Amino acid sequence: MLIEDISELQKARFRYCPRLPAVFHANGARVQPLGGDKLEPAASEQDAIRERFPHTYAQPLLHFAGASPNSFKPINVGVILSGGQAPGGHNVIAGLYDALKSLNSRCQLIGFIGGPSGLLENESIPLRSDLIDRYRNTGGFDMIGSGRTKLETTDQFDQALETCRAHDLGALVIIGGDDSNTNACVLAEYYASIDAGVQVIGCPKTIDGDLKNSFIETSFGMDTACKVYSELIGNIGRDACSGRKYWHFVKLMGRSASHIALECALQTQPNVALISEEVAEEDMTLDDVVDTICDSICTRAEAGMDFGLVLIPEGLIEFIPAMGELISELNDLLAMHEETEDEYRTRIGNTHDALTQSKTDADARKAGLSEGAAHTFIALPGGIRKQLLLDRDPHGNVQVSRIETEKLLITKVKSNLKARKAEKRYSGKFSSQAHFFGYEGRCAPPSNFDADYCYALGYCAASLIGNGCTGYIAAIRHLNRPAEDRIPCGVPTTSLMNMERRHGEERPVIKKALVELAGSPFQAFAEKRRTWAQETHFVYPGPIQYFGPANVCDQPTMTLQLEDDLG
Amino acid sequence: MLIEDISELQKARFRYCPRLPAVFHANGARVQPLGGDKLEPAASEQDAIRERFPHTYAQPLLHFAGASPNSFKPINVGVILSGGQAPGGHNVIAGLYDALKSLNSRCQLIGFIGGPSGLLENESIPLRSDLIDRYRNTGGFDMIGSGRTKLETTDQFDQALETCRAHDLGALVIIGGDDSNTNACVLAEYYASIDAGVQVIGCPKTIDGDLKNSFIETSFGMDTACKVYSELIGNIGRDACSGRKYWHFVKLMGRSASHIALECALQTQPNVALISEEVAEEDMTLDDVVDTICDSICTRAEAGMDFGLVLIPEGLIEFIPAMGELISELNDLLAMHEETEDEYRTRIGNTHDALTQSKTDADARKAGLSEGAAHTFIALPGGIRKQLLLDRDPHGNVQVSRIETEKLLITKVKSNLKARKAEKRYSGKFSSQAHFFGYEGRCAPPSNFDADYCYALGYCAASLIGNGCTGYIAAIRHLNRPAEDRIPCGVPTTSLMNMERRHGEERPVIKKALVELAGSPFQAFAEKRRTWAQETHFVYPGPIQYFGPANVCDQPTMTLQLEDDLG
Repeated sequence: MLIEDISELQKARFRYCPRLPAVFHANGARVQPLGGDKLEPAASEQDAIRERFPHTYAQPLLHFAGASPNSFKPINVGVILSGGQAPGGHNVIAGLYDALKSLNSRCQLIGFIGGPSGLLENESIPLRSDLIDRYRNTGGFDMIGSGRTKLETTDQFDQALETCRAHDLGALVIIGGDDSNTNACVLAEYYASIDAGVQVIGCPKTIDGDLKNSFIETSFGMDTACKVYSELIGNIGRDACSGRKYWHFVKLMGRSASHIALECALQTQPNVALISEEVAEEDMTLDDVVDTICDSICTRAEAGMDFGLVLIPEGLIEFIPAMGELISELNDLLAMHEETEDEYRTRIGNTHDALTQSKTDADARKAGLSEGAAHTFIALPGGIRKQLLLDRDPHGNVQVSRIETEKLLITKVKSNLKARKAEKRYSGKFSSQAHFFGYEGRCAPPSNFDADYCYALGYCAASLIGNGCTGYIAAIRHLNRPAEDRIPCGVPTTSLMNMERRHGEERPVIKKALVELAGSPFQAFAEKRRTWAQETHFVYPGPIQYFGPANVCDQPTMTLQLEDDLG
Repeated sequence: MLIEDISELQKARFRYCPRLPAVFHANGARVQPLGGDKLEPAASEQDAIRERFPHTYAQPLLHFAGASPNSFKPINVGVILSGGQAPGGHNVIAGLYDALKSLNSRCQLIGFIGGPSGLLENESIPLRSDLIDRYRNTGGFDMIGSGRTKLETTDQFDQALETCRAHDLGALVIIGGDDSNTNACVLAEYYASIDAGVQVIGCPKTIDGDLKNSFIETSFGMDTACKVYSELIGNIGRDACSGRKYWHFVKLMGRSASHIALECALQTQPNVALISEEVAEEDMTLDDVVDTICDSICTRAEAGMDFGLVLIPEGLIEFIPAMGELISELNDLLAMHEETEDEYRTRIGNTHDALTQSKTDADARKAGLSEGAAHTFIALPGGIRKQLLLDRDPHGNVQVSRIETEKLLITKVKSNLKARKAEKRYSGKFSSQAHFFGYEGRCAPPSNFDADYCYALGYCAASLIGNGCTGYIAAIRHLNRPAEDRIPCGVPTTSLMNMERRHGEERPVIKKALVELAGSPFQAFAEKRRTWAQETHFVYPGPIQYFGPANVCDQPTMTLQLEDDLG
């Protein structure tokens, strides 16, 4: 990176010193662990999880109680970024590096290149201060890259162990989402079971916000990503208000859970925000969803406002029960069964053609869909049908993120409004614009919140390593308080596990934390959305600020604030 | 607007005091005008313009030379926002308001609602300090709204004059782009010719940046919009670099000129940035453009980099000569000629069908296209052909902004790469993501630069009014200097005029300022783009900052900096 390729803001941010919880501020990572209650998963899961994780089951929740009287031996640590990018990843690594050096200046940190595959293939770089310093408080995962290879099999674990031995590593830090932390936990258990001498610590990353529980209050990156999206939604809302002629449909990244859509709704107060979990809970059809939007459009049109703002979570389509069933049937239908490659191709080709040419429910049933799925399929606009058939991942699955839900909704809204117009229930003018925000926020420079939080996570991971822990996730509690008042802790990963059916077998996985409809963030939204649907209460958050007043620069997400208000 | 609907940043920005040029800082708008050279349009245009603007032709360039010895009578002024939104519009109004009050505290300002139509239909609101204060340093045009009604006919001018009389207005300030300022100039001339006693002053607005000359260094809003787009492009570039698997194609708003794409390219250093003016100048075909992109993709693939960033100006498609001809032929073919509504519908229906079903050049020729246009049309992907036929404005013209150029290019790039792969000239993996940024930036909260510039424009407009001027555009020179060192001036609008053929007749219009290929911004880009195409030199500008160090918060566009370096 040439110096002239570095923006002025980035140069200024290099100099930002993230604020640490008091215990780290005073002692670095040389802290004394204090075990609390043993943490176990939900009662129904305990037997199955205990059986699979005999060495890492029911470990205590750990806090840190001031300076440790121990001396710390130098240890070599490897770090991996796993999965999709999230703002703050570089700060976890910077915090880990600084904290390891505070344990013992002879500690070494190496980074595995391109995610878990770097560990398997022993592709790594030593992380030294000159490199670290060029990535402090920056967005992106480009320091060492990330990847989606899954560490799942014993063969992989053994291969990884060879890499660890080659570098004399005593610990691995895996920065990832729910799946990556699940795998980290299985790896920790395996290494403990064979006495490999390699500790494994996870860090909770994902802009989706679906890796959380009562100790892990949020995953890192969500704060920044939601603030970037809210900046853009606010700008678009102000444009809608000024031009008064467009309804903007904004789809927001977030594969399953609607935490991002909910947080952005709380920040920007749009006319409609769809929450997938509610759509599923209420068993809504696509037409119900479209009706919700059209009700707002009609009410606002009567008040002379032919403009508005609709937020759509990326995962919505799968949460509409009928659509979810259709997608799952298509996945089955188009997957490879027990057949040769040639047989598969011929069958797929025929199914494709039959579905593409289907004009009636009966046609689609003949092509292999159930009555319900056929009906859902035929009711979809042609463009969307095509996307369902063509945009498939290497396993033959529909790529939900490629489905242009925002355009599907616009098409459906148009025909719904046409019908209402014919019935004299609507007399407005409808024009629309579609947007999809995802990549815009995943590598944004981290907010002060994420910069501080991530840096503290790095310290926490180092403290857990220094104290010999494995099978833990680093966590920082009381994130709604000023940085120095936050409480770092180690959460035993097995306590987050439950058994789920994946690829046809029961497996222990970290439970995805969906939006809770009874939770205070959703309730705060539900209380106001009727007013927002009718009137204009858009909020314009503006761009993330780093240098201004604390109430502008240092607020956590509304989700965190609301959850904290309650308890 | 409820107080709880106002973001913390917006509250903080209400308190920002825009920085004024020294002459206004010391004297408010009570300044002494100092006439310089008489300004005339280009020699070839002078006769035609002089003839059409006898009262406002060859007025002097005006500067302001310290305090005026005059006393200023109270005057009532009307203000209009015309055309698309641009960040800073509210600050022009706030500056105008404060400056009028500095002339005489009994001056009144009224705002016309929804753009020029508000003036015709006498829809207005008085602008008082409590209202103004709620919009200081905010984005959007929602204080009074904007609109696209064109003030062009004498009937309209007379109707507008009735409104002016009803409010006892002595002056109108029209905040708009090239077309709106053209019309403002015609209006100024007309009111001068009938001694209406209403002065007309324009302010240069448009994010497109195509309203400029040697005195009007940039139109307001471009700075903020480009910074918002560059923030997003930078974030996406960092994501590309981290994930290393996508080529991102980013289309950027800007109807004709590529100033936005060029500025964003200078700020973010993408692998490819297409500049429409160069494409036209070099007489490039769509295939040439696609080849440019594919060359970068192949070179980078060889170096192991299957990722990248391409910037595309919204207007590109019309600047590709062959596409421009096709669009123009389609516009003619599908426009209403001398025929009845029924005849028109039947003809259009037939032409539509014939073009939709065309599979060969010969088919398309039979449908009415020339040989060249038929060839261009048939070479386009089906989806784009459909957009060309369906997305038409009320006049039957192709809506260029609705054409998904970014997706067209991706489709063409894919087949180009396939051919290269067959010839063993490419062995990489190509995956892409498409983005379009426009609405995200038009109503962003103004940067410090736009906040200061716009506020000064308001002062400048008031100073011109106070000194009895009409047919002027308010301008601020030396925008690359600190605010206090900038020089406000009045530019006679007729000096920007030239004759152009519009809707079949020769008309005086302000010449659109396209990107000059010999200019220093394009040259700076051209010098580096070969390196950028091969290596990765992405810059990550980050979000606009308001409170930090001056080099982070107060820099103007690179375009302005580079133009200033030269001159």
